[in-house]
Amino acid sequence: MNFTVAINVMPLKDLLDPQGKAVLGGLQNLGLKSVQDVRIGKRITLQVEAANEQEAKKIAEEAATKLLANQVMEHFEISILQ
Amino acid sequence: MNFTVAINVMPLKDLLDPQGKAVLGGLQNLGLKSVQDVRIGKRITLQVEAANEQEAKKIAEEAATKLLANQVMEHFEISILQ
Repeated sequence: MNFTVAINVMPLKDLLDPQGKAVLGGLQNLGLKSVQDVRIGKRITLQVEAANEQEAKKIAEEAATKLLANQVMEHFEISILQ
Repeated sequence: MNFTVAINVMPLKDLLDPQGKAVLGGLQNLGLKSVQDVRIGKRITLQVEAANEQEAKKIAEEAATKLLANQVMEHFEISILQ
């Protein structure tokens, strides 16, 4: 079966996110003063051929650990979309 | 009230995603042959001060439309995290 798996890779809470800070400044310049913090990460969707959801998640986890996320600076979460 | 709003910005389905193609190649070199397609976008989380969820979503939508997403090449979706 074919699964669509989403991996969200976000900077760790304790780390600075300069890209997010820059966007926050941009939003405030646009008049969106009620935005108080911005953090920017990646969202990766994979099409995975797997026997079941567990296996699809396991493959996505391997992809995230080995290639997509740098776990020193980022954390990731995985969800099955369909 | 303070809301955490997530905005997922992904390349449109009909467009090529060279970054995704490169990552797909990388995953296959790592032995993850069951991954068939990869698309890479952005995930942005905002801390928004708003009276209710509707208002928080509206602010996020304005942020996405005006700054975060290029709607010629990308589509976005918004969700409230808490």
